[in-house]
Amino acid sequence: MSHNTFGHLFRVTTWGESHGPALGCVIDGTPPGIPLTEADIQTWLDKRRPGQSRYTTQRKEPDTVRILSGTFQDERMAAPLTTGTPISLVIENVDQRSKDYGEIRDSFRPGHADLAYEMKYGLRDYRGGGRQSARETAARVAAGAVARKVLAHELGGPVAIRGALIQMGTLTIDRARFDWAETEKNPFWCPDAEAAARFATALDEIRKAGSSVGAVIEIVASGIPAGLGAPIYGKLDAELAGALMSINAVKGVEIGEGFAAALLRGEDNADEIALQTGGIVYGSNRAGGIQGGISTGQDIVARFAVKPTSSILAPRKSITRDGKPTEIVTKGRHDPCVGIRAVPVGEAMMACVLADHLLRQRAQTGVAGPVFTPGR
Amino acid sequence: MSHNTFGHLFRVTTWGESHGPALGCVIDGTPPGIPLTEADIQTWLDKRRPGQSRYTTQRKEPDTVRILSGTFQDERMAAPLTTGTPISLVIENVDQRSKDYGEIRDSFRPGHADLAYEMKYGLRDYRGGGRQSARETAARVAAGAVARKVLAHELGGPVAIRGALIQMGTLTIDRARFDWAETEKNPFWCPDAEAAARFATALDEIRKAGSSVGAVIEIVASGIPAGLGAPIYGKLDAELAGALMSINAVKGVEIGEGFAAALLRGEDNADEIALQTGGIVYGSNRAGGIQGGISTGQDIVARFAVKPTSSILAPRKSITRDGKPTEIVTKGRHDPCVGIRAVPVGEAMMACVLADHLLRQRAQTGVAGPVFTPGR
Amino acid sequence: MSHNTFGHLFRVTTWGESHGPALGCVIDGTPPGIPLTEADIQTWLDKRRPGQSRYTTQRKEPDTVRILSGTFQDERMAAPLTTGTPISLVIENVDQRSKDYGEIRDSFRPGHADLAYEMKYGLRDYRGGGRQSARETAARVAAGAVARKVLAHELGGPVAIRGALIQMGTLTIDRARFDWAETEKNPFWCPDAEAAARFATALDEIRKAGSSVGAVIEIVASGIPAGLGAPIYGKLDAELAGALMSINAVKGVEIGEGFAAALLRGEDNADEIALQTGGIVYGSNRAGGIQGGISTGQDIVARFAVKPTSSILAPRKSITRDGKPTEIVTKGRHDPCVGIRAVPVGEAMMACVLADHLLRQRAQTGVAGPVFTPGR
Amino acid sequence: MSHNTFGHLFRVTTWGESHGPALGCVIDGTPPGIPLTEADIQTWLDKRRPGQSRYTTQRKEPDTVRILSGTFQDERMAAPLTTGTPISLVIENVDQRSKDYGEIRDSFRPGHADLAYEMKYGLRDYRGGGRQSARETAARVAAGAVARKVLAHELGGPVAIRGALIQMGTLTIDRARFDWAETEKNPFWCPDAEAAARFATALDEIRKAGSSVGAVIEIVASGIPAGLGAPIYGKLDAELAGALMSINAVKGVEIGEGFAAALLRGEDNADEIALQTGGIVYGSNRAGGIQGGISTGQDIVARFAVKPTSSILAPRKSITRDGKPTEIVTKGRHDPCVGIRAVPVGEAMMACVLADHLLRQRAQTGVAGPVFTPGR
Repeated sequence: MSHNTFGHLFRVTTWGESHGPALGCVIDGTPPGIPLTEADIQTWLDKRRPGQSRYTTQRKEPDTVRILSGTFQDERMAAPLTTGTPISLVIENVDQRSKDYGEIRDSFRPGHADLAYEMKYGLRDYRGGGRQSARETAARVAAGAVARKVLAHELGGPVAIRGALIQMGTLTIDRARFDWAETEKNPFWCPDAEAAARFATALDEIRKAGSSVGAVIEIVASGIPAGLGAPIYGKLDAELAGALMSINAVKGVEIGEGFAAALLRGEDNADEIALQTGGIVYGSNRAGGIQGGISTGQDIVARFAVKPTSSILAPRKSITRDGKPTEIVTKGRHDPCVGIRAVPVGEAMMACVLADHLLRQRAQTGVAGPVFTPGR
Repeated sequence: MSHNTFGHLFRVTTWGESHGPALGCVIDGTPPGIPLTEADIQTWLDKRRPGQSRYTTQRKEPDTVRILSGTFQDERMAAPLTTGTPISLVIENVDQRSKDYGEIRDSFRPGHADLAYEMKYGLRDYRGGGRQSARETAARVAAGAVARKVLAHELGGPVAIRGALIQMGTLTIDRARFDWAETEKNPFWCPDAEAAARFATALDEIRKAGSSVGAVIEIVASGIPAGLGAPIYGKLDAELAGALMSINAVKGVEIGEGFAAALLRGEDNADEIALQTGGIVYGSNRAGGIQGGISTGQDIVARFAVKPTSSILAPRKSITRDGKPTEIVTKGRHDPCVGIRAVPVGEAMMACVLADHLLRQRAQTGVAGPVFTPGR
Repeated sequence: MSHNTFGHLFRVTTWGESHGPALGCVIDGTPPGIPLTEADIQTWLDKRRPGQSRYTTQRKEPDTVRILSGTFQDERMAAPLTTGTPISLVIENVDQRSKDYGEIRDSFRPGHADLAYEMKYGLRDYRGGGRQSARETAARVAAGAVARKVLAHELGGPVAIRGALIQMGTLTIDRARFDWAETEKNPFWCPDAEAAARFATALDEIRKAGSSVGAVIEIVASGIPAGLGAPIYGKLDAELAGALMSINAVKGVEIGEGFAAALLRGEDNADEIALQTGGIVYGSNRAGGIQGGISTGQDIVARFAVKPTSSILAPRKSITRDGKPTEIVTKGRHDPCVGIRAVPVGEAMMACVLADHLLRQRAQTGVAGPVFTPGR
Repeated sequence: MSHNTFGHLFRVTTWGESHGPALGCVIDGTPPGIPLTEADIQTWLDKRRPGQSRYTTQRKEPDTVRILSGTFQDERMAAPLTTGTPISLVIENVDQRSKDYGEIRDSFRPGHADLAYEMKYGLRDYRGGGRQSARETAARVAAGAVARKVLAHELGGPVAIRGALIQMGTLTIDRARFDWAETEKNPFWCPDAEAAARFATALDEIRKAGSSVGAVIEIVASGIPAGLGAPIYGKLDAELAGALMSINAVKGVEIGEGFAAALLRGEDNADEIALQTGGIVYGSNRAGGIQGGISTGQDIVARFAVKPTSSILAPRKSITRDGKPTEIVTKGRHDPCVGIRAVPVGEAMMACVLADHLLRQRAQTGVAGPVFTPGR
């Protein structure tokens, strides 16, 4: 991870500001020969796209992606294939409305990074938050779509990387009703239909009040082989934690049992191991699929907490650029629960981390999974 | 972060196994001209050293550090100074007792990374856990000591990076009694004397039962200037999260309000901003000193959760290398609450991340802090 | 250096194929607050642009650059300023004529990388050479233009990075007539007017014969402070060598005296040192301004050799994709001496390396030049 | 390449000063399961070791290497095997004689990096040249020995990486007499017995005169598969150039035809391609085994020029630390032709670059060689 580049062998460099002409990314290190079209990426961008329900910002962005390099098709090929050279993706900004934001030119919104950027760089593109805007995450989702293609192609089997909103403010889901299919049926990516209804009622009230609320998202990757990850500083969980914490507004990350592991005794925590016909079977998955920074073959399970967006109607005390006290009220178009749109972003980050580690394991050992399997 | 190297400009590469002849690290990128002696490092290693109370492993390791390169002193200098070249630190292993561990050669301890290492690499140094042993963290603490020197020298003022054990299993501290001075007075680094007494009672029982327990540690850095950190993937909180999650047994990381931020409304979360004679004053520090991945000048506050060590006396089901079912009982010398010794390690990781970001800010802007301050 | 990214702190990631829709680069790490317009970059692109004389390819590419991110201007600013966030530059491809290249779909041009790419990746974008085309160097020149701005701004004084074609085939310049001003007056960037006339005559003959010829280019950077560069693997000369060797068709690189240093005795090689009013004065510059990988304050002097382009009318023996013998004749639009257009590319690479090392020195020491000067 | 670390996936970090207690390196990324003993490394260190003939420095260093981590052996294994964790190698300094060097404490030897280091860092370890000493190259040779093991193990066949001194001052070899076996029979690694005799006579005279002389070294790697290397900035030749230029005293690097390619016409330069029973056969190897930055399956051929060491008896003008004029005469123990001992260092650097690229190709494509071969 280095400033605007993410990953080591599956490397994603993103660029772009909220109200500039466009944003995008360059993906380097992709294996050659993988079918890849703009539609493959658009599917996932559409999932993150704003304005799809009354619960997200009403900014109208089609978020249409263009592939400018790195794929090739001629008459012998059924689809464009990656060539192994860098893939450049561009998404134009369409609905900027910069006048909405002129008022924050000379003052700093509490809870935003306005002041931090200004202290760091001495100036900032304040239009729509500039580079600090969550609009940057569109590039992450595009990169994640490519990472999914890499994982599927190189692993040769079904890989699922799915996210769910499991908590909104103080409201939580009931684990007994957890159903991945349900996440596609409500505007919250909530896996519990009953909770989704409660989320809707609560968020309507919050939205009308000009307020906002935090959330917790869970990301699960299934079909990931054992052996990915790398001690000591390239641990799979360490890099996942960094990746998820780098998403706008995220304040906490946990793997498997997470903070609840602190409550446990040793007897209750370690996942027991057995061998069955299909391979290794674990008695539980408190580790979240990662031991010593290395994938175990179980589902990879991560959660992250998103704070409430600080763009609210209630006035907040702040200062101006020249040090005068002021009050800020944010009127623009905003997400009352930015956690909702963080769901596809979290999926994308996990996909990128896993694709990166797949290539790293292959570099060191020649295989994209375990070198050894007990009983074989 | 890349396998065994941590950091970008303040780069730490660690090496060594639990029962090999030695362990150590190479630190590259240190500014020249900083006074640095072995004693400067030893102080912090002593804090992490095992066997100092009945609550940690009884392995006897003096953990004496040697500086093999990167400093220089002649008759004109009052102390050895860093030269800007790589600093190589070595710590010999003294009390290995490898026979203790022969029984895990052909089977895999649940909750440990034995099986994960074997699947990843096809073989492992199983003596004392080899590279997966928390013994590696001695090298981190040594590097952290150098990072502290860098921070103090380059910032030219008081910087404090302190850790505290704030939760052991289900027992927590009382925030009203939080006192940093107290952490030096009990074997848990607990900032609440009353809680420390409860921790002692509980841990005695756990230790005698051959069990173990999890913990939560809080790390706070004071005196850190605004402007450190870097969007988008080099965010200060993202790299802290990765750094802390890379510590053995850590399952969760949070910054500032952390997971509790998910519960809040926007009005309750954003830290208000004011200007006073001494500079910027914030109404609260729910952000944990970081906005948009950049330090704000407030205390940097992070917490991490440590699982109970899986080395316990109760038998756990597992398999052998050739796939047979077995039961594992761990008899060696172990920490009943590995979270205790994680305190100085967490401090070290925060010190390293901050030193790295100080150099990165200086590279891009020429100053080791804010470029701009409101009202000046 | 890693695949398609160049530099450590001034990081350039390029993308794009010869006949794709566009090519470009993302520049990360630029200091904030530097005035930067598209015109600043266009000046240098125009220098490299094809079709400006009969001695370069007749492909018509305006090479118009667009800045898509990383700069900002409002009514308070006289010019757009860099913000410290990534600068995305895009150049559209206009004059592709892909039909010219269909014949090389199934065979491999000797001297080109056709076969090497196919062996490495299993497929390639053969249109115009795809990613192996020297068209990629437009992105380097654009990045070099930004690097020049960084150097000028951060050093606050005159920096000149200039290139000259000093040899074409067996024809060489006369050092006694070396005049930088002359390089702007002939189509070869030749610093010797008399040699330029000889180059013209020779190259007309070569061009008409459908042949090509090699060249040697010299790049000199003036105004670079002492102290840039870094032992051991980040040596300024080592990174310059890598940078220049990465330019298409380059087969040799030398610094200062270069290969001629092998002929010398110790007495004849070392540059003597003296102090005058203006600072350090060296008796000679056989080192090319670099000692131990660190700049000395003298001119940085590098040379590189470019092979003759392999796109020639004479038939050359090769094989087809399915292993049959064939003969290749290249008819498209090509440079009879690709070394000519390598001049601005070499300048750009040196500018990028120097900007990178300026930031690196500033990171480690806080200054963008020497920490110590004798006699002060 | 970054300061003291070399390589991307086969990563070598070196440390140590000429007169410190020890020097060494940490190698990260090595594949697991490769047999590796100290003797495997010692063989190559012995080749570089000083004091083996009257033509190299008389400093007596046994250069005994110790492996401190990263390998493991138990009773089931015939030899220690790499475990995939970092390999730490240490070589003690034995024969320092620091008093020899006290006189350069306050003045700067022309042709050395004394002044450059002092300007960069503000201080330096001047004992024996400190970090700028060629003694650092012992660590490179040790790393190169591990790289050779990696190449042999992963390629599963004979790989030879050999170096030869082909020019000493104005004396050159006769290519018609080039014989690799001869390099083992004279103290110069000269492949031409007749030339070796002339080298001996010349160097005896130079040595007695307290002078020194430059040299050219050729390194050839045989048995390297096609497909290694990576456009655009990770080109195999670009990284080789950087690697060889990073060796002390090197001033020029060339690949294949090198600077002589500038003299050629297109018809004379491109290597023709044919297919025979055993695979691809090229009509020549002017490319030096690399096209477009990617290996072609031919021998990899590189040459580099080494300047005469600046440690000579003839007085040279310089200045003192406080700016006074002075004259320097170097009396210590030195190599009259440092190019001789650069031969094993050049081999080691090529081995490291190739091992790195082998892992990189495997990461991206899953194979450690070509993905495609014509006619198959």
